[in-house]
Amino acid sequence: MKKEQSIYELNNFDLDNYNILLYETLFHNANGYIGVRYNFEEGYPENYQLVTSQFINGFYNYTSMKQAEKLHGFVEEKQTMVDIVNTQSIKVKLEDEYFSMYEGTVIDSRLYVDMKKGITVREVIWRSPKGREMSVKITRMASFYQLSLFTIDYEILPINFSGDVVIESAHDGNVANYFDPNDPRTADEEIIHMLPVSCEIINGASYIMAKTTKSELGVCSSVKNLLFQEHELSYHFGENYTVSKFTTKAKKGKKINFIKYTVLADSIRYHNYKNQVGIEMRKALSVPISFLYEKQEEYLSEYWDHCMVEIDGNEDLNITIKYNLYQLLQSVSKDQYGNIASKGLSGEGYEGHIFWDSEMFIQPFFTITNPVFSEKLIENRYATLNMARKNARILGHKTGALFPWRTIMGKECSGYFPSGSAQYHINGDIAYSVISYYLATKDITFIEKKGAEIIFETARIWIDTGNFHEGRFYINDVTGPDEYTCMVNNNYYTNALAQYHLRWAVKFYQIIKGSENFDRLEKKIRLREEEIEEFKNAAENMYLPYDEKLKINPQDDSFLQKKKWNIADIPANKFPLLLHYHPLHLYRYQICKQADTVMAHFILEDAQSMETIYHSFQYYENITTHDSSLSKCIFSIVAAKLGLEEKAYAYFQNTARLDLDDQYKNTKDGIHTANMGGNYMAIVYGFGGFRLKEEGIFFAPMLPKKWKGYRFKICFENSRILVDVNKDTCEFILVSGEAKKITVYNKEYLLKDKVSMDRPGRE
Amino acid sequence: MKKEQSIYELNNFDLDNYNILLYETLFHNANGYIGVRYNFEEGYPENYQLVTSQFINGFYNYTSMKQAEKLHGFVEEKQTMVDIVNTQSIKVKLEDEYFSMYEGTVIDSRLYVDMKKGITVREVIWRSPKGREMSVKITRMASFYQLSLFTIDYEILPINFSGDVVIESAHDGNVANYFDPNDPRTADEEIIHMLPVSCEIINGASYIMAKTTKSELGVCSSVKNLLFQEHELSYHFGENYTVSKFTTKAKKGKKINFIKYTVLADSIRYHNYKNQVGIEMRKALSVPISFLYEKQEEYLSEYWDHCMVEIDGNEDLNITIKYNLYQLLQSVSKDQYGNIASKGLSGEGYEGHIFWDSEMFIQPFFTITNPVFSEKLIENRYATLNMARKNARILGHKTGALFPWRTIMGKECSGYFPSGSAQYHINGDIAYSVISYYLATKDITFIEKKGAEIIFETARIWIDTGNFHEGRFYINDVTGPDEYTCMVNNNYYTNALAQYHLRWAVKFYQIIKGSENFDRLEKKIRLREEEIEEFKNAAENMYLPYDEKLKINPQDDSFLQKKKWNIADIPANKFPLLLHYHPLHLYRYQICKQADTVMAHFILEDAQSMETIYHSFQYYENITTHDSSLSKCIFSIVAAKLGLEEKAYAYFQNTARLDLDDQYKNTKDGIHTANMGGNYMAIVYGFGGFRLKEEGIFFAPMLPKKWKGYRFKICFENSRILVDVNKDTCEFILVSGEAKKITVYNKEYLLKDKVSMDRPGRE
Repeated sequence: MKKEQSIYELNNFDLDNYNILLYETLFHNANGYIGVRYNFEEGYPENYQLVTSQFINGFYNYTSMKQAEKLHGFVEEKQTMVDIVNTQSIKVKLEDEYFSMYEGTVIDSRLYVDMKKGITVREVIWRSPKGREMSVKITRMASFYQLSLFTIDYEILPINFSGDVVIESAHDGNVANYFDPNDPRTADEEIIHMLPVSCEIINGASYIMAKTTKSELGVCSSVKNLLFQEHELSYHFGENYTVSKFTTKAKKGKKINFIKYTVLADSIRYHNYKNQVGIEMRKALSVPISFLYEKQEEYLSEYWDHCMVEIDGNEDLNITIKYNLYQLLQSVSKDQYGNIASKGLSGEGYEGHIFWDSEMFIQPFFTITNPVFSEKLIENRYATLNMARKNARILGHKTGALFPWRTIMGKECSGYFPSGSAQYHINGDIAYSVISYYLATKDITFIEKKGAEIIFETARIWIDTGNFHEGRFYINDVTGPDEYTCMVNNNYYTNALAQYHLRWAVKFYQIIKGSENFDRLEKKIRLREEEIEEFKNAAENMYLPYDEKLKINPQDDSFLQKKKWNIADIPANKFPLLLHYHPLHLYRYQICKQADTVMAHFILEDAQSMETIYHSFQYYENITTHDSSLSKCIFSIVAAKLGLEEKAYAYFQNTARLDLDDQYKNTKDGIHTANMGGNYMAIVYGFGGFRLKEEGIFFAPMLPKKWKGYRFKICFENSRILVDVNKDTCEFILVSGEAKKITVYNKEYLLKDKVSMDRPGRE
Repeated sequence: MKKEQSIYELNNFDLDNYNILLYETLFHNANGYIGVRYNFEEGYPENYQLVTSQFINGFYNYTSMKQAEKLHGFVEEKQTMVDIVNTQSIKVKLEDEYFSMYEGTVIDSRLYVDMKKGITVREVIWRSPKGREMSVKITRMASFYQLSLFTIDYEILPINFSGDVVIESAHDGNVANYFDPNDPRTADEEIIHMLPVSCEIINGASYIMAKTTKSELGVCSSVKNLLFQEHELSYHFGENYTVSKFTTKAKKGKKINFIKYTVLADSIRYHNYKNQVGIEMRKALSVPISFLYEKQEEYLSEYWDHCMVEIDGNEDLNITIKYNLYQLLQSVSKDQYGNIASKGLSGEGYEGHIFWDSEMFIQPFFTITNPVFSEKLIENRYATLNMARKNARILGHKTGALFPWRTIMGKECSGYFPSGSAQYHINGDIAYSVISYYLATKDITFIEKKGAEIIFETARIWIDTGNFHEGRFYINDVTGPDEYTCMVNNNYYTNALAQYHLRWAVKFYQIIKGSENFDRLEKKIRLREEEIEEFKNAAENMYLPYDEKLKINPQDDSFLQKKKWNIADIPANKFPLLLHYHPLHLYRYQICKQADTVMAHFILEDAQSMETIYHSFQYYENITTHDSSLSKCIFSIVAAKLGLEEKAYAYFQNTARLDLDDQYKNTKDGIHTANMGGNYMAIVYGFGGFRLKEEGIFFAPMLPKKWKGYRFKICFENSRILVDVNKDTCEFILVSGEAKKITVYNKEYLLKDKVSMDRPGRE
């Protein structure tokens, strides 16, 4: 089986439990609305531990989260992304033998995701214990064309036998989320989330209606099975499940084709979601599946065109990059009712919560390739602004909105606030994403209608949180990105970002003041001119810690007075440190879980001199464990900026296959979407030197030694630009849209058609 | 009914539920081993909410304490002081009418605790709905002479009738702890702690054996009832309870006397605790109850003599002070298996946990009046030293012992570590109490055998926690006494106490080096001479924050850069702040729950100049809410030291009746033992200016304007000294023991018999 540029595949793959859990994640199908973990339709040996979930983006239940010691404002109820139904099961019986890769002989097998076609395929050539041979090809698709739809296309080719074949296809409402009491990153007890309401067959399709136990959300799933040859069909019911049983004849050498359609609709998006499911099912069945496959490929063709990244002569890497970007497309919500969970729709890790990962690691990719997705993501935050206001009140703020550190529907889900709610930078992160969206699109109407309200409301929190001390604006008792140091004063990342945020609040005020939309907003949030002055004043006097001796920005006021801990002295089995040391112990050391100040040096590079950024990078690199998957990509970008090509490449390489190689040993819980976005950024922002600023777009491409050349496309103010980096030259081609000013290696060009220049090699 | 100097009484007391809960606490009987909340033997109306508990000091069950987000080392199991049995119920039926203060007419009633006799008495003159009149006198005693014993002595005087009387006395093993899901300071759910094992009658006494569900501790209770006139007796059994039913004749004008004996023994103290209960019951019954009353009075007579405090011409205040000191005697364990819970044995608040309250607020009183109790308290900590070692490992320390912030049997019970385990000063507090015990007794053998091991092991934690920075020793990321500011660097209280602690570790090393006991200890804990050098070095270079401009010791490194919050601007219904503001909000302000730096200025007054102490006092007074009951007493003492007589007196007055007036609206959960100790200290350390130092004992008595004179006794190195302060003079009288050097108003005297001097008035 030949490797293609857009296929990630495993041949003769392992069948042990560990790998099966990994495949559940790596080969899951999702389209931003539904997500289905990858399970063998025929099942597994009885003792296997599985997750087997199907999700809907933004669909949650409440779970009580008792606090060991309840203090005022502590969160006692969290949201959990729930497993809503199981429509994966298809059992195939040849005469008296059920197909199973755990019985008989697997002669050949291949499992792959085709990123061009948007499908996952399993191909197996199998010999039964009694010698029946068949080849099976199972194609699974979560349709981008019809978001409610998930299909399993099952082809059986009897190789050496004819006879009776029975196909049993189940639709099961008895589902429960995965749990592991020993892992703080997954749920820790079994909880029934879905209560089935009804289970029926209408027009040959099964319908299961179910409601969440606490959040009172409803979902309807429907399954219809088609077998394209003569057969008998009977329906079997159990409690909250149905099995459609097809009996047919297999003929040696003649393919049997069986298709299972699942459609879903939920009460968040549809009032009459049962009715909607009927509509969706009719729509799906009104066309041949080949039409759906064509639409899928069309959709992806445009996607790959928009976010094109190619490395010359490195097929494996190209596939890896494509895999990562494919997962981001699978994960991102296509409407404002969902967002991107830290694990996308691929698993239950972190209970389906969204974090700053969305804004700081994934949105930058969409903003410069498919800004429409970014718009939806911002709209999702906008839709929860009222809850952010309430959250601010809980934290004691009389004004403004404070977004939750982790959430699905907008309410805070942090159980341990010092490394949760205390991460006030979430407000700055969301503001940053809005500003970036504006910079990339100049969509001022969106700012007027939604963006500015987010910006102003979140900016108010800085004013209410901070205070002037000796003439400088201080922000005390917050936690920066690095969770190994919590509740500190003047975290550099937070303060620098707050400064940027406040400055942009002032700018947006100046830009939109006087517009009709602004008048409405001003009234709605009672914005006073003096507040704008406060924003300005706080921004201009923002205290940014700087250490004269080390010539670095200390992570916070007291970071440098803490103990040092030589990372090389820590035994390998003690990583990640958070699983082996009490937080209080970690807080006492100069040790970082992830990029913090270094992250600030990336997103706000103009706040410091190259010298400071260089020294900071060196300093923090020595004390960062990268126990967070959000770290190495940032170090790669900043290393690239500093011309540290080898380091940049090493970090980049480390991020590329984080999930494919299960580097954190938890990919079974889901993909690491932020790292995937970070991996993209390491190429475009890192090696490509791309920056999106008020002054325009900037490039400073470098060429990693291991590459012959590379290219990528970005979208800026509706113009699409191809950047082609080769050994000696860089070429910028305007693919579509109007001419744009670009700055390359600090020199301005007007890109009308094409601009070329020599690449100043640092080698 | 005349008021006596040693009686605290209520006449015609209220019977509403709120007050009943208060009486449960205020009139509880305890002797340091058993505690019985005060309940009407006859019961209450059905809709009343009650606590009704009986406790054993140090007797606990484990309760699971799930963490909302579990990080490494988080505590997930706490200990709870459990309600072990109910032996209070005695119902009296006159013909067809049950006695109840809620039926018929209460003609007169009085409820009092007699601190001289060591009993609680309820006297009621009652007319039944049908007109039967009787007077009842119920005397309850937890015996100091026989710690296992609790008695209820019930006298009935039929005033206007004769006839049948039935007395039903119950012994009930079906008990459960009180809970209130809305109050973080009590348990939040109903949990069965005691599983009855057996219930039987032997020799007319009922025996209930029960085990805790998780900690596997056992308890046996026995009840025997005596009725001193002709009667019939029958026993009635239910599940885990028995009722002894006495039928007798009442004769107008003739007293009926009924006594109920409860004895208890537990598996912590006795291997064969059932057998022990038999022995104890026989012992109790072998003497008339009058003998037990005599012994009780004898015991108390010595106690009152040892801790005598008298204010001239202020009867109410004398009773209040006596009440407080009586509660401390009721609360303090007489053996090393118990300690003093923050609520003593009076209620379930804080789940019966012990805190630094023991060492810093209560032990100082015992150390200078009844040092034998302090010895037991230190022995209780010593007995848990191994658990403190384990606790240190959990917190990441490779060496040393870190005592838990809250515990019963030695394991940490903090659910929220930032204001729990992070209070490393607990180590210093315990060391301070050991040092004080040594200073008061010069019992070097005790230090060699137990004290030094505590001192060295806890001192090691400072070395492992702190680090040198710019030549000074820093202690980062700990929480000081003030829980409104958590996880800070260089908390002044902590650093100053650590310095004192480390210096004493060095001193003790020098004193006991070479002794046999030391050799054993050195081997046991592998103490190295270099460690002593480290102690010395850290102590001498300890960083103590000082602000040049304000001339104060800042509470911690960053305290002064935080926002100010005018306490006068906070609405009254927002106190205590912890119940109305998120901790993160509180942490961001210069606002204190309690004395922190001011506390350091009391216990370590020689570390700073009077000027600094004065400025600090003024500064912190402005920003302290006294939301903790441990605060005002300390402010009183330091105000007295600074000559701020009115302030000192106001604070003192506020602490005196904290429980009697239910000032914190939570006395129902138990008395505030630390405040009671603090109230004593406000007199002796505050007005009396008493200090216990390496150099000897110091006095500097002042006379509050509202007092004509006062006197108190203290014990120093086995000599008992009476201090008599009058308008113009102070007298020091050696009551017993050898002559001692004393320093009064900075002048040294040798106290052989009596020393007098003029009192330099500040008025």
